[in-house]
Parts: sequence; C-alpha cells; structure tokens
Amino acid sequence: MTKQVNVGVIGAGRIGKVHVQNLAYHIPEANVVAIADIFVEAAEECAAEFGIPSVTKDHRAILENDQIEAVVICSSTDTHAQFIEEAAALGKHIFCEKPIDLDLKRIDRALEAVEKAGVKLQIGFNRRFDPSFKRVRDMVAEGKIGAPHIVHIISRDPAPPPIEYIKVSGGIFVDMTIHDFDMARYLIGSEVEEVYAAGGVMVDPKIGEAGDIDTVLVTLRYANGAIGSIDNSRQAVYGYDQRVEVFGSEGGIVVGNCTPDNAIVSDADGVHAAKPLYFFIERYTDAYIAEMKEFISCILEDKPPSVTGIDGRIPVVMGLAAWKSYRENRPVKLSEIG
Amino acid sequence: MTKQVNVGVIGAGRIGKVHVQNLAYHIPEANVVAIADIFVEAAEECAAEFGIPSVTKDHRAILENDQIEAVVICSSTDTHAQFIEEAAALGKHIFCEKPIDLDLKRIDRALEAVEKAGVKLQIGFNRRFDPSFKRVRDMVAEGKIGAPHIVHIISRDPAPPPIEYIKVSGGIFVDMTIHDFDMARYLIGSEVEEVYAAGGVMVDPKIGEAGDIDTVLVTLRYANGAIGSIDNSRQAVYGYDQRVEVFGSEGGIVVGNCTPDNAIVSDADGVHAAKPLYFFIERYTDAYIAEMKEFISCILEDKPPSVTGIDGRIPVVMGLAAWKSYRENRPVKLSEIG
Amino acid sequence: MTKQVNVGVIGAGRIGKVHVQNLAYHIPEANVVAIADIFVEAAEECAAEFGIPSVTKDHRAILENDQIEAVVICSSTDTHAQFIEEAAALGKHIFCEKPIDLDLKRIDRALEAVEKAGVKLQIGFNRRFDPSFKRVRDMVAEGKIGAPHIVHIISRDPAPPPIEYIKVSGGIFVDMTIHDFDMARYLIGSEVEEVYAAGGVMVDPKIGEAGDIDTVLVTLRYANGAIGSIDNSRQAVYGYDQRVEVFGSEGGIVVGNCTPDNAIVSDADGVHAAKPLYFFIERYTDAYIAEMKEFISCILEDKPPSVTGIDGRIPVVMGLAAWKSYRENRPVKLSEIG
Amino acid sequence: MTKQVNVGVIGAGRIGKVHVQNLAYHIPEANVVAIADIFVEAAEECAAEFGIPSVTKDHRAILENDQIEAVVICSSTDTHAQFIEEAAALGKHIFCEKPIDLDLKRIDRALEAVEKAGVKLQIGFNRRFDPSFKRVRDMVAEGKIGAPHIVHIISRDPAPPPIEYIKVSGGIFVDMTIHDFDMARYLIGSEVEEVYAAGGVMVDPKIGEAGDIDTVLVTLRYANGAIGSIDNSRQAVYGYDQRVEVFGSEGGIVVGNCTPDNAIVSDADGVHAAKPLYFFIERYTDAYIAEMKEFISCILEDKPPSVTGIDGRIPVVMGLAAWKSYRENRPVKLSEIG
Repeated sequence: MTKQVNVGVIGAGRIGKVHVQNLAYHIPEANVVAIADIFVEAAEECAAEFGIPSVTKDHRAILENDQIEAVVICSSTDTHAQFIEEAAALGKHIFCEKPIDLDLKRIDRALEAVEKAGVKLQIGFNRRFDPSFKRVRDMVAEGKIGAPHIVHIISRDPAPPPIEYIKVSGGIFVDMTIHDFDMARYLIGSEVEEVYAAGGVMVDPKIGEAGDIDTVLVTLRYANGAIGSIDNSRQAVYGYDQRVEVFGSEGGIVVGNCTPDNAIVSDADGVHAAKPLYFFIERYTDAYIAEMKEFISCILEDKPPSVTGIDGRIPVVMGLAAWKSYRENRPVKLSEIG
Repeated sequence: MTKQVNVGVIGAGRIGKVHVQNLAYHIPEANVVAIADIFVEAAEECAAEFGIPSVTKDHRAILENDQIEAVVICSSTDTHAQFIEEAAALGKHIFCEKPIDLDLKRIDRALEAVEKAGVKLQIGFNRRFDPSFKRVRDMVAEGKIGAPHIVHIISRDPAPPPIEYIKVSGGIFVDMTIHDFDMARYLIGSEVEEVYAAGGVMVDPKIGEAGDIDTVLVTLRYANGAIGSIDNSRQAVYGYDQRVEVFGSEGGIVVGNCTPDNAIVSDADGVHAAKPLYFFIERYTDAYIAEMKEFISCILEDKPPSVTGIDGRIPVVMGLAAWKSYRENRPVKLSEIG
Repeated sequence: MTKQVNVGVIGAGRIGKVHVQNLAYHIPEANVVAIADIFVEAAEECAAEFGIPSVTKDHRAILENDQIEAVVICSSTDTHAQFIEEAAALGKHIFCEKPIDLDLKRIDRALEAVEKAGVKLQIGFNRRFDPSFKRVRDMVAEGKIGAPHIVHIISRDPAPPPIEYIKVSGGIFVDMTIHDFDMARYLIGSEVEEVYAAGGVMVDPKIGEAGDIDTVLVTLRYANGAIGSIDNSRQAVYGYDQRVEVFGSEGGIVVGNCTPDNAIVSDADGVHAAKPLYFFIERYTDAYIAEMKEFISCILEDKPPSVTGIDGRIPVVMGLAAWKSYRENRPVKLSEIG
Repeated sequence: MTKQVNVGVIGAGRIGKVHVQNLAYHIPEANVVAIADIFVEAAEECAAEFGIPSVTKDHRAILENDQIEAVVICSSTDTHAQFIEEAAALGKHIFCEKPIDLDLKRIDRALEAVEKAGVKLQIGFNRRFDPSFKRVRDMVAEGKIGAPHIVHIISRDPAPPPIEYIKVSGGIFVDMTIHDFDMARYLIGSEVEEVYAAGGVMVDPKIGEAGDIDTVLVTLRYANGAIGSIDNSRQAVYGYDQRVEVFGSEGGIVVGNCTPDNAIVSDADGVHAAKPLYFFIERYTDAYIAEMKEFISCILEDKPPSVTGIDGRIPVVMGLAAWKSYRENRPVKLSEIG
C-alpha cells in the first residue's frame, strides 16, 4: 500500500467541499481524517458524504491531532493568517486558500511562522494547474515564443457575488483580480513592477454603493520590459470568461474558453456553439485536483510547493497597488506598497 | 445515508478497472463488494487500489453472492453471453460490455434469459453518454434541425490493436464499427435497413494477413429515408478522431474532437492547436462515469436502462451485414442477416 | 504594353457576366471585344456595363471574327459541344463551362475536333482554383499527409434551382455532383473506378415528380485504393456548404466554409458566428478570377490548361455511373459506362 | 450610362496604386482622368497599367483641371493639409489619406478651408469598411450587446517599416496607433476622454535610436464610462494581427484574423491552420474598395461622408496625448492637447 498523508480540513464551505471530494476520490495518497467548521452541521454533512471519520467545530481539534500531518485551510479569509501561524507552530504542512490576508504585516507574520517551523505552505492559486494556462507558461519559459512582449488576461465572472460578500471582500482588486495578478506573474516568470488601474461601476450600482467597482482594466509593467493588461467584469452574461494571451518576439499563444460540449449547430439564423462553462468549479475541476495532488506529493516527496507563501503575498501587494492607482488615477509602483 | 447498490465486477482488465474506479469514486450510490478475474492477480491489484473487500478467480463466487444485486461484466467477449445467462438466472441486474456475442443465436438466448428473469440489462455503449453526442441526439429528437437527411460518423483510432487481438476480434465491422453502428441508430432514432461497405487494408498489411481490413467506409440507409456514412481507420497519426455530423431540413450539427488544452500558438510556421485526446479512456472519461451512473440509478429507481439488450444485438447484425456487403460488394439489407 | 488576348464571350447569362467582369476588371492581359447571346438584350446590357465594343445575337459572328483569339462559352449546355467544334474548326482557343455535354459520344466528337485543330480547351471547373481546395490538393500531391486513405466531399446548395431547370438538367448527378466528381479526382490525383450512389427526395417532392432526386451520398473507390464519399443536398438552410476532407497515412486535412465576416458573438443564448457565404458566386469569387487568369496565361505562354477536355468528360462518366448505381442499387464501375 | 465622377489622383505610391486600381476596376461610377506624382515615372507607370489618359508631375495640373470633380490625395503626409486647402479652394471634393497632418493648427486650417468651400472631405480610415469591424460597430450601435463596458483592439504589423520612414513618421502613436484610435471611436460611438500609454522598444533597438518605440499598450477611458485597451507591435512574426473585442452588459463580440485559406491540417505534430493574411493590402482589399465606393457615392448622391475631417483630427489628438502620457507616465486627458 502506498504511503498516505493524513489530512485535516478546516472549513466545510463550497471550496472546502471541493478539496475534500478531490482528496477523497482522486488522491489515493491522501486520507481525510477530520473536518472542522464553526457551522458544525456543514462539517457533519461533508463528513457523511465523503466518509470522514471525525467532525469538529473547533479547528484546534484538527491542529492538535497528532495523526494529522497536513491541514487544508478553507475557512473565511480573516482566519487564514491566524490558522497558518497556529498550524505552523504545531508542525503541520499547510494548504491555504487565497488570499492569506489583506494586511501585508499580517501576511508577513504568518509567513515568518511558516519559515520558522520549516513546514510546507502552498497557496490555492488553482488556475496555475489548468492544462491550457500551464502550457502557455511552459511555452513562454521554454522560449517557444521568444521574449514575451505583451500579455492579456481576460477574466470575467458569470454573475456578481452577493452584496454582503462584496462589502467584506476587500474590493475587486484583492478579491477577484488577485487570481489574475497571480496569473500575470505565473505566465511570464517576471515580476510586475508597476500597475495602472482604470475601472468603474457598470454592472450594478449596489456594488458602487458598497464602495467597490465591478469592471476594471489594469495595465502591467514587468521588470523584464513586457507590458500587459488584465480586464475583469463581475458579470459576463454568457458565462465564465477566462482567456489569456501572450505575445512575444517569436510568436503568440492564445487560450480560449472551455465549453460543456463541442457541438456546432448551423441553422437559418447562424452558426452556434455552446457557451463557456458557467462556473469556476466546473471550469477548474481538473485544476483543483491537480493542485491538491501537488500539495500531497510535495509532502510525500519532501519537495517545495510551486505556489509558495511569497506567491500568496505578491498578488495582495498588486491588488493594493491597483486600488491606490485607481483612487489616485496614476501608475503606482509595487514598491510604494511594501 | 443514501441507499447503495452492491456491485460485483467480473473482469479486471483495462475496461474493468475503468468501471471499478468510477463506481468507487464517482458513484456514492454504488458499492463494489467483489471482483473476479481468471488472472486473479489482476483482480487483487484492482481490489487493493480501489479498496474492494473480496477477490475471486471464479465469477460464480460473484454470481452466487447474495449480497450482490448487480454485476458488471468486463470479461472477454466469448464469455459475455454465458455470464449474462448465469447472472440472469440468479436474479442479478447486469451491465455488460459490448458486444454481447458475435453469434446472433447466442445473443438471442442470452436476451431471452434476461427477459425471463426480469432483470435489467444495460449494454456498454459509452459514447451515447458523451455530452456532445447526446446533445446532437437531443437536438435531432426535438426536431431542432428538422427531418434528418444525412449523417456522417468519423471514428478513427490512434493506432491499431495487437494483431493477436485482431485475429480473435471478429473483424473491424463487429469490433470497431460496432460503436458507430450504435451511434448511427442513437443519433437518428430510426433503424438502418441496409448497409453498403467499402474498405481495404491501408494501415498495415499484417492486418490483411490476419483476414481483416483496417479502413472502411459504410453507407447507411435508414427506415426514415435518411442516408449516412461511417468511416473508420485503425490509425490516425494525430490521435483519436471522433466526430459526427447530422444534416437536416432545418439545419445541421457538427461535433468536433476534444483536446487536452485550448491553447492556440501562432508562430512563423503557422497557427497550431493541440491534437485530439489520444486514447478512448481519456476521450470518454465522463461518458464512462455517466453510463455507470445511469445503470445504478436504473436499479435504484427501478426504471429500464436506455441502452438495452436489443441495442446490443442490432449493431452486431449491422456488423455482420457490413461484412457480407464488403465480401460480396453489394448493398445488404439487415433483414438478410436476421 | 503587355500583350493582350482578344476574347469573345458566348452567353450573357449569370455565369457569362461573371466571366466578362473578371476579364474586364481583373485580367489586364485580356480584352473582351465581343459578346453574343440569343437574347440580344442580355448581351447589350452586359456590353454596356463592362464596355464591350461589339454585341451580336449570333455566336457565329464571334467565331468568325478574325480579331478574336479565344472564346468563352457560357451558353446553355446543349450548345456546348457544337460551339466547341465550330470554335475549334476556326482555330479559336476555348474556355467552356461544364458540362461539355451529357452524351459521351457527343463529348468525344467535340474533343476530337479540339485535338485535330490543336487549340486549347479549358473546362470551367472553378472550384479547383479555390485557394483552400488547391492547398489540399497540393499537400496530397506533395505527400504531406502520406498516402490518401479516405476522402469526404460535402457540397450542399442553399436552395434548389427552379423545377424547370431541374427538368432539363440531366439530374443531380450530372448537374450538381459533377463538380464534386471533378473535385474527387483533383484532390487525390487518382481516378475513381467505381461508384455506389444512395439518395432520395427529401427537400421537395416536386423534384421527385420531375424525375430527379435532391439528396445523395456517393461512395467512391479509387484506383489507388482510397475510398471516399460525396454528399449533396439541394438545400442547406444555413447557406452554401462546401467542405472537403482528406485523411491519409500521415495526417488529415479539413477545409471548412467561408464566411462573410469573422465576428463571433457571445450572449446569453450561446456563441454565434456568421453563416457560410450564401451563393456560389460569392463563395468562388476569387476562384472564378483565377481560372480565367489561367486560361489567358495558357494562351499567352502557350502552355496546356490544367483542366482539360478529358477532365470535362470523366465527371460526366461518373455522373452517368452514379445514376445507373442509384437506379440498380449496386456499385457500378466507370468502365461499364464508357 | 451611369453618371460618372471624374477623379484625379495625387500620389502614385503604394496606396495611390491601390486606390487607382479600385477606382478603375471596381467602381464603374468613377473615371480616373489624371494622376500626379513628383516622381513622374511612378505616375506614368500607374497610368499605363490602369489606362489613365493624363499624367503630370505637378499636382496643380490636377487641381486646376475643370473636368475633375474629385481628388484622391495619397501623397506624403506633409503635403496633405496644403493639398486639401488648395483643392477645397478650387471646389474639388477630397479624399485624403490619414493623417491630415501632425500639427493640430495645420489640420484646423485645412478643415476650415473645406468647410468654407462646402466641398466633401473623406479621410482614409479604411478599416471602418471591413465587414467584420463594421458588424461589431453595427451590433454595438443597435444595442445587441447592451451597454459597452470593455474594448480591446489588437493591431500588430508583420514587420517594421524602414528606419528612414520611422524617423519622419511622427512616431508609433500617430503613425500606427492612429488607425486603432479611429477604430476605438468607431466601434463604440463615444469619444475617448483620457489615455494612458505604456510601451517600449522590444522589436528593434534601431527604432529606439530613432526616437520611437515599437510596442505599446494604451488604456482608453470613454465619455460613456467604457474602458479599453489598444496594443500595437511593429512585428508579429506570424503576420498581420488585427483583432477587436467589445464586451458589454448583454454579451460580447470578438473579431479574429483573416486567413488566405480555410484548410486545417492534423498530423503527428498537432493541428495546423494558415497564418493571418500577411499584409494590410491583402487584409483590407475589400475595405479599400468599399471606402472608395462610399466616397464616389457621396458625391453622386450629395450626402456627407461617414468619415469626416473631424474624424481625421481626433485620432491625431489621441496620438499626441498618448505620446505625452508615455513620456510623463501618467494618464492624459485629450482636453490637455486641444
């Protein structure tokens, strides 16, 4: 029998269930032994569905469980940094959903705790594990398109989240664009040094009343000289729109959307294809499995995760810089943020 | 806890493992309690990997197990009909891989046994459960393209099977085209009445020496007046080529290939996309899950399977008619075969 | 000033006007000096529009004009063979629309006249000059896809011609499929030896009452062992559907339709593209120019046309064989026809 | 006979020849009676090729020719404003290539002269007449995608022009991006109020030495609240890359590249399509014809051109604002420029 990693999961919400299902069904090397949620009924339901032996309301019961080698933190954002510190102190390897925190000092303390404890920390930037985006990154890294010159990242949600969520989200640049900031770094393998953010409230005035915007366009300037854009909308009526493009001295790569089927219908009105997959869980099904596989294999083979704590910190810096840029209507260097 | 169906699997080869994995990981309503294989090591390995409690060399141990409600027959083709009869006699519901048999009388005896016993029988035509092909069928059935006039089914393997396999396969029309014969019926919802088969040995002369051909083009005439073609090749160097097209009075539908990623690369040599998924297990991953889900839900909800014994018989008739047509170089009515 | 070829055009109908326009506007090396039509008003209108100095009702006035080196025959099919003979006898080079005739003996007499006179004869199979189809042919000829195994030609009109036209057309196999028979030979560079034709009346019962069919599927067996299909429909509601596919030992080539624009619209209903160009004159605009350029350059440079008299004869044989096959429901060798 | 407009063409360079050919071959309502070029050999060659009766070195001979109703100005940019004024003073209708001038005061004087004379002036923004871009504009104008939120314009040349050209071009924002600035206005039907330009020298250091840059990314803020980006590169190794995308509250539209053929090749290395048409004259063949048709029909039907003098002025303002933004690394309002 293969060696297994005993895992505890903290947080039984939407994304917690995705990870539990993947650990239970797709990763024979992992064994989910306990799940915690402050809404204990959610943890119980999840445990029943996926056969997890132990359920708790208190995340400490997971962290203090000697059987458990690794924790998967899927609780609300405001608990991430604290749980990372606690888990590190108890010697657990950590997978944590993004963002670590919205406060850079808080992030730094958590990352120090991880470093001090010598445990592994992987941040949940699932899109890096999508086969299409990974292929773009690999081609760029291998020089297949020469030196990268221009990047475009298009990332539009099918519908906005509830206003109550938006109010506590930290705003679009740290809640939504953060994924694209990570993608921007991942694809090019060079740091972004400066951002310029334009945007507005175009989808729903309630989002504006909540102090946020819903449509953005961010210009990126990379250390290696490349330039790029990210656009976000909280609402694409045709579904989840996730595309990237990298253009370089020897060619370009474009990644289009994924669809539920490949049927093309021609009729008197035109030629029709399926809309993109509507929801992030469908769109990134395989990517979520792949990221968790990597986390487990990093533990089993004692190798460093490819998405580290610093990879969790920098997109927050970018998000804060984007907010500053948007508010002051001027390009902002990341070095201004910290 | 949901009610579960206890399942026994007979045959731990390639396709047997696919079904075991799907039952174990994707269908909470199923519980694989035993697996049999005459190569008992294969069964043991599979049991270890997927946590099946009981392993046996003898399929009778599965059939006679009172705990087991349903069997999944993935053994070699020459055992299918016998195992169906035995399982039916013992009151088990049956999922059986295609083909039931290559001898129509043998098929008929098996189907009679099933009918007499009143058990459910589902035949493993997995492609019916592909979302793209299903969408074509649904659109045809709903009249979205009007009356169907012309059908094209393109079905090409990435590489030929071993010559030893080909020698006992019954030949391309009953081994490979059989899937497309089923697809031809499924898409249109009308029976094929006559076939005309052209073909030859183009891929590998050894296939010809084994008494088979490797490239075919079959014309279909349907009862409803529609006409169609199936083409098969044992070798498409670019991968597993699986496309269909239905053209009707109000429009047409085309289904293209599935690819591992959506990246499009433009360089000085041209514009390049990924090849189709190479292998049937990758191409039809979700279809295999969906067909097994349907089988389990038919048992739980006591409803008839959508792919029945007669659906298993007719494509064999079509395959035999195609062989006759090919050998005599004339159109052959299915009614000539029986 | 470049040397020019003085051309006379016989027939000022739809296709005659296409050729006149192309000669006048796109081929500086050609000079249309006269146009004839039995409906002299049509010739006059055409002459006015494109500045042709001389108009006549009688084609003999063109053939006997010493200034004229080459004639373009666009009159009704029943006059083609006679006009070819007359033009050849008077030493004119000849471009003639397809088909030469529906009677093989009549064709043979015309081709003998051409050969005896030593003039050039090019037949109007315009599709050979389409850049996409030409690229397929070139790739096949260069061995880029290895040995060709399977061919598919899909050719569907947007709407049927008037019933009066159908009545005198010789039927779908010689009127419509003839283009695809030529394409079948052109793409593969090998002769078809046997055809098997299925089909029916699916579009309009009036076509059946006129003794014709409107939907066909023809199986082709080539001398080089390749197999193929042609499908035709008199009515594709989404427009003019013109696709080909060649599959070989080293790869495959597929040619899709041409569209009036490249815009892709995504909305709540799906993802929508433009329909194919609706009409053959739009679809083959450039091909008509290219074929006429080739004709003129063959005269100026004294080289043989690439679409010869025998290329005009063989598709008629194929059409007659297809009719025989359809009526007798059996494969028919071209050698049975003559 | 249709009424014809007598046209004089000033400038027999590359774009002058395009217009002469289109006027001669595609627009029966136009009659090119004279052509001028300071390199009189170029004018003579063009006249010989397209049958223009009169050739001159001096543009005044064209302007003072009473027979001529309309002039097409294709001379070097530094002559445009002067020739517009002269032509207007002599009552000629004017088609002028972009840009009118790089000096806004100079442009204003020319536009005043046009207004005072009451002649028609059309500026040569040919891309507006491309059927795909026109369809985007029409769909936006008709509200088919709701309110426009985000625009992307991708416009990359296959290879940089000669350094000598770049030195006198005014730089990339007024020489190359100017087309995209016009497209940005055209597609959305709202004015851009502010631009922010990033960019650099990535293609060729010689371009930098000439004081220019070769790769840019411009952020646009529209009066109606929409935001957008334009990217330019002087060199896309795969050819002329011309795409646009508009995203709105009810959907999105994407326009892809045009290719010389539709063949898709699948082989052991992948799936391959043709590169985009390489050169602007091939890509916009039909658009050049359509813009000139519009100019001639505006004269014949006495209606105002759709691309006016002010449409020629605003993109110059945008280009100057982009330069200011790039140099000062801050967003610049168009109102700062004038």
